[in-house]
Amino acid sequence: MLLSGTVVVDASTVIESGAVVVENERIVAVGDCGDLLERYPEHEHRAFDVLMPGLVGAHVHSVQSLGRGIADDTALLEWLYEHVLPMEAGMGPEAMEVAALLGYLELIESGVTTCIDHLSVSHADRAFEAAREVGIRGLLGKVLMDKDAPEGLREDTDAALTKSERLIERYDGANDGRIRYAVTPRFAVSCTEDCLRGARALADEYGVRVHVHASENRDECAAVRDETGMENVEWLHEVGLTGPDCVLAHCVHTNEHERELLAETGTHVVHCPSSNMKLASGIAPVEEYVDRGVNVALGNDGPPCNNTLDPYTEMRQASLLGKVDALDPTSLPARTVFEMATVNGARAAGFKRVGELREGWRADIVGLTTDLTRATPIHDLLSHLVFAAHGDDVRFTMVDGEVLYDDEATTVDAEAVRKRATELAKTVV
Amino acid sequence: MLLSGTVVVDASTVIESGAVVVENERIVAVGDCGDLLERYPEHEHRAFDVLMPGLVGAHVHSVQSLGRGIADDTALLEWLYEHVLPMEAGMGPEAMEVAALLGYLELIESGVTTCIDHLSVSHADRAFEAAREVGIRGLLGKVLMDKDAPEGLREDTDAALTKSERLIERYDGANDGRIRYAVTPRFAVSCTEDCLRGARALADEYGVRVHVHASENRDECAAVRDETGMENVEWLHEVGLTGPDCVLAHCVHTNEHERELLAETGTHVVHCPSSNMKLASGIAPVEEYVDRGVNVALGNDGPPCNNTLDPYTEMRQASLLGKVDALDPTSLPARTVFEMATVNGARAAGFKRVGELREGWRADIVGLTTDLTRATPIHDLLSHLVFAAHGDDVRFTMVDGEVLYDDEATTVDAEAVRKRATELAKTVV
Repeated sequence: MLLSGTVVVDASTVIESGAVVVENERIVAVGDCGDLLERYPEHEHRAFDVLMPGLVGAHVHSVQSLGRGIADDTALLEWLYEHVLPMEAGMGPEAMEVAALLGYLELIESGVTTCIDHLSVSHADRAFEAAREVGIRGLLGKVLMDKDAPEGLREDTDAALTKSERLIERYDGANDGRIRYAVTPRFAVSCTEDCLRGARALADEYGVRVHVHASENRDECAAVRDETGMENVEWLHEVGLTGPDCVLAHCVHTNEHERELLAETGTHVVHCPSSNMKLASGIAPVEEYVDRGVNVALGNDGPPCNNTLDPYTEMRQASLLGKVDALDPTSLPARTVFEMATVNGARAAGFKRVGELREGWRADIVGLTTDLTRATPIHDLLSHLVFAAHGDDVRFTMVDGEVLYDDEATTVDAEAVRKRATELAKTVV
Repeated sequence: MLLSGTVVVDASTVIESGAVVVENERIVAVGDCGDLLERYPEHEHRAFDVLMPGLVGAHVHSVQSLGRGIADDTALLEWLYEHVLPMEAGMGPEAMEVAALLGYLELIESGVTTCIDHLSVSHADRAFEAAREVGIRGLLGKVLMDKDAPEGLREDTDAALTKSERLIERYDGANDGRIRYAVTPRFAVSCTEDCLRGARALADEYGVRVHVHASENRDECAAVRDETGMENVEWLHEVGLTGPDCVLAHCVHTNEHERELLAETGTHVVHCPSSNMKLASGIAPVEEYVDRGVNVALGNDGPPCNNTLDPYTEMRQASLLGKVDALDPTSLPARTVFEMATVNGARAAGFKRVGELREGWRADIVGLTTDLTRATPIHDLLSHLVFAAHGDDVRFTMVDGEVLYDDEATTVDAEAVRKRATELAKTVV
């Protein structure tokens, strides 16, 4: 396939009248449209206003999609313990699968080609199957909770780790490598030391990643401090959950030493600005992480705390929140957050050659329209994509050269999923 | 016309399977769809998923639309003096008209039926004509700058006030009252005392409103303090520019006494959260204004500092920013910001019986779709509208009973406006 349009190669390279040639799962050429049409005359030709790398939603809870907006404007503990966790605990296998399908559909419809997905304790296999069905690229993991968890979610430590191991064996590398497994402790508060150390051992044994919430909330940090005598990230470091194979979501409340640890160990941080605002968690010191060389990615978190999985909304939010926090309008400029939402996210997820449109890289590509009043005029395309674009502008989404969305989802019946999701939502919240 | 759907009457009343009946410019009935279909069998029937009051963009710069995104990620003074003001100074009558058309189109396409619009120094008449052509309801005003303004924008005081007077005579009450005039000093820094007092005199003489930027930025406040020995809002009060006919945009930096003044005088405040974030102006003490009984409305400000005029994005932003600022997730809940964006905005603009869907009120109505993956499921409609909806969901916009948007603009050729705007944008920035 030959895709033509203004090609955003990466955060600093744009080709006007460009094209991208895709063969199988790879990009085989990127350049001037006229040249490529001559070199590849046989390829099916599709034209878009803009082509850009697929976006990476680096911290999401697809299986919470049935609870979009269930507890808006409520305090965090009530939100978590009275709404979100009971919902997860009450979800059977079908609800889990439909919720995941709904989440992945929303992601591909709005330009996300890769996600890092925090599933739930039970029925994680149904989300893996949903990811395979939709065709999204993803780093997914069953959630570990072996203490301080409500009925229906708390598991025995060994049983939880053994279940994780079975899922790794079954799904890590599935769908021709589009699906990878992440060992996924919920957060330090809900996991015993044995569980956290067991997660590290599993990750080492199978060469998979770890995905965990960290230092999102002051009460969470205080609980860890009370129990371990350490700060949260120090504790995660102590039990082995820092390093280049670890993805820590949020990292809002960290001290100097913890920030050093994150940088020194090459741990990935996922910034979730809208969620941190809506739950009043605070503002993560993103610019400081970036300055220290920490790889910072971007995530929408779950539909009950956002309430959208749109990656454009989140890029805009990251930049705007960074500016008002620093009281500096040059803080977290468009190019920085664009990298967070693309190549940094792919790096965090551990997918190679993903996040830029380059020869030899994976064909994870999004086509957008700019023929909209609210997209007129465009003085700088990168800036437009970050500050003015929206997931609705996406017309075409491809992962590994497979078209997943072409004005409508191609791999699943979106209308049927929405209908079933609406029905199931009434039963689980 | 009989419009059916789930009817959002106001921030606390929703009618499932409801309908709104419109005759001429008024709503003549609101209630159960079945009942109203029986009572009004002859009326044209249109069905939507959701019907809600048209939104009010209470601080906008339509004529800056050609500069959408011209100076993203730059510092405020550079943004204003090197980009935005020179652009305004360089715009001829056609550019001003096309920019305004583009702005009003974006507004009606995204569900805004009323705006409070800060025009420019010159060619304001072209924006009034554009508003009339599009059919939007608006409180518009030519900008006053008689000091500290770049070449091409500074005017002689008397000449500026006389021009305003001619515009009042020509346009206040135009289009059957849809268009009202606001005397519009840019901000205290760019206006002499004579100009500010002259604005008050004009407003009194003609019974029109005043719209002015106030206390958006620390440097602006410092400049006023240096020159007058007073805080900015104190100074505006001193020269007569507080009161129930005054609309002050921003009010980010105010002290205790100024907040008291705003409340005591019944002055309207327009909160512009995205703009205040992007330009790193700070966070307005909105909850405190609300608690004191100040009428707070919501505005997107201009496309160079937002970069969208979408009112749903701004409702979401107001709530999210309020929560993270207060470190309280119950702060500025959906219902509060929904009121800001509807009835409070109408009150600020001085339009009576606008902002709710009630019998006898103006037929300013928006119809939306919720048949979207990202709108599935909906547990609470008000919450959905604030946190998850987007201007793209709008399918139908009506002002005074006139359909202005019905999947496409009905009063102007949107494609032609976009094309001309793209051409002109290259010449003015």
